[in-house]
Amino acid sequence: MYVGIDLGGTNIAAALVETDGTITKRVGVPTDGKNGAKGVISGLASVCELLLSDTAIKPRSIGIGVPGTVNDTKGEVVFTPNLPLRDVNIVDELKKNYDCPVRLGNDANCAALGETVAGGAKGARDVVLITLGTGLGGGVIVGGRLHTGLCGAAGELGHMVIEMGGRQCGCGRRGCWETYASATGLINTAYEYELSHKDSLLWAGVDEMSQKRIDGAIIFKAYREGDTAAMLTVQRYVEHLAAGVVNIINILEPESICVGGGISNAWDCIYAPLQEAVDKEKFTRFSPQSPQTKLVKAMLGNDAGIIGAAALGW
Amino acid sequence: MYVGIDLGGTNIAAALVETDGTITKRVGVPTDGKNGAKGVISGLASVCELLLSDTAIKPRSIGIGVPGTVNDTKGEVVFTPNLPLRDVNIVDELKKNYDCPVRLGNDANCAALGETVAGGAKGARDVVLITLGTGLGGGVIVGGRLHTGLCGAAGELGHMVIEMGGRQCGCGRRGCWETYASATGLINTAYEYELSHKDSLLWAGVDEMSQKRIDGAIIFKAYREGDTAAMLTVQRYVEHLAAGVVNIINILEPESICVGGGISNAWDCIYAPLQEAVDKEKFTRFSPQSPQTKLVKAMLGNDAGIIGAAALGW
Repeated sequence: MYVGIDLGGTNIAAALVETDGTITKRVGVPTDGKNGAKGVISGLASVCELLLSDTAIKPRSIGIGVPGTVNDTKGEVVFTPNLPLRDVNIVDELKKNYDCPVRLGNDANCAALGETVAGGAKGARDVVLITLGTGLGGGVIVGGRLHTGLCGAAGELGHMVIEMGGRQCGCGRRGCWETYASATGLINTAYEYELSHKDSLLWAGVDEMSQKRIDGAIIFKAYREGDTAAMLTVQRYVEHLAAGVVNIINILEPESICVGGGISNAWDCIYAPLQEAVDKEKFTRFSPQSPQTKLVKAMLGNDAGIIGAAALGW
Repeated sequence: MYVGIDLGGTNIAAALVETDGTITKRVGVPTDGKNGAKGVISGLASVCELLLSDTAIKPRSIGIGVPGTVNDTKGEVVFTPNLPLRDVNIVDELKKNYDCPVRLGNDANCAALGETVAGGAKGARDVVLITLGTGLGGGVIVGGRLHTGLCGAAGELGHMVIEMGGRQCGCGRRGCWETYASATGLINTAYEYELSHKDSLLWAGVDEMSQKRIDGAIIFKAYREGDTAAMLTVQRYVEHLAAGVVNIINILEPESICVGGGISNAWDCIYAPLQEAVDKEKFTRFSPQSPQTKLVKAMLGNDAGIIGAAALGW
């Protein structure tokens, strides 16, 4: 039995995970981000105790998914934007109490590993996961193993520039894929189209007084109802999404590209036009008789990160 | 002793290669591209005979670098734009004569492997090679091994879009990195600047009557002499080059990015501004105390492909 922990900015979720991805027990505690590294480390100890105290199970490993850059070899969190952890060892405390390896991974990387061992990309050896949420995260699996790069920062797929000089990204660059293909990017594209379509259903979602703004659900609902601005929005969104997907195919040609995050809930709206746009542009269209990279929907939702964290130790 | 073969559109070059990358004997024959696959296959037999007939050496493997997509498992060339090979097995004939494995690789991928085993990126485990020539080729090494992708087409780095809707690329996409960061891209950028700088030294390189056009050497010569249009050209060129390099770092975070091809001969002009631009934008600048991806110049020139082809069998 393996322990997987998803260290989030708000909660720390942990679970006992079997090697087929089955979760047999879950626990969670709020993240204490106000007392520096100490608070976070003590939260990690708490979830482990909650998870393991009433059983005789000795975990074979504990894996922790962290929203930032980690150095797994040293057991350190290198950098994380939303937690008070910088060059801090967060595994030694756990190692004192549990006689097993404690592994660290980036959270998006863990999700990629989770989808590969037990989710949408199960069985594939080379996989790229893209998570289309507020931002655009990702993970790269090569030969069944997480590719973490020189200092644990590989897989920042959202910060691939696809439009030089384009939208300002939080990372400092302009034109990052994330600024177009994340849910935030979709919404910004919707605002561009909505302005010139005063009768659009998208307006129904907007009420500046109550600070209700357009969101992904409103856009896809309007899209399904045939609203022009929503259709233009989704069409443009898919062009940007496809640009990055094709880049990934041309660079890595993985067996599967697995699409997760909130936007993937509108798979019925995006899959067909995405596949069509990708098929038109990918380099491997010149060898159509060869196997082609599959676009698949992520299946594990929020569990992907926990299962992947557990799988760090497999 | 290993045999490395570089199957080019004009010549087939072959060599005996030791595992430290030393070449002990070289031969070459013209490529016969006019008689279909048969002509090419017979050329491969010829270079092997030339290389091995007067020695008692039995090769431990033969590796062939092909300018196209290959299926190494099947021993087939899948697709190549400049040779009459499509879904053709080119190894069985050699296997009849030599009792050793015959391996296939894409030529740019082989160059990446060559630079990793014996050149500019020697000793690194994760390497990306970019070759800045007429086009922009590349190869990805993960964990010391060539990453070829699902059907052998990984590493098409030049066909990563960095400017959606930008310059038309031969692959059918618009705004591919190759259209800006190859030597051809550099020249096209020079023409843009030269038009508005009538006194530029770049004009000295242009004589439409004799069809002498600007080339890379003219641009870098003018750059070193402080010519304004040349400086603007190289500055813009480096911005485009950096965009793709940073994308690669953000996606794969390799230990080294190795830069080869004709443009790398102007390493004195491009290295410093490239490194500066990359350092400003890469995601790993947020963890400056961690090891950083190195930009290194390729060292093996045309031998990289042959050495890498030989290394396919190591």
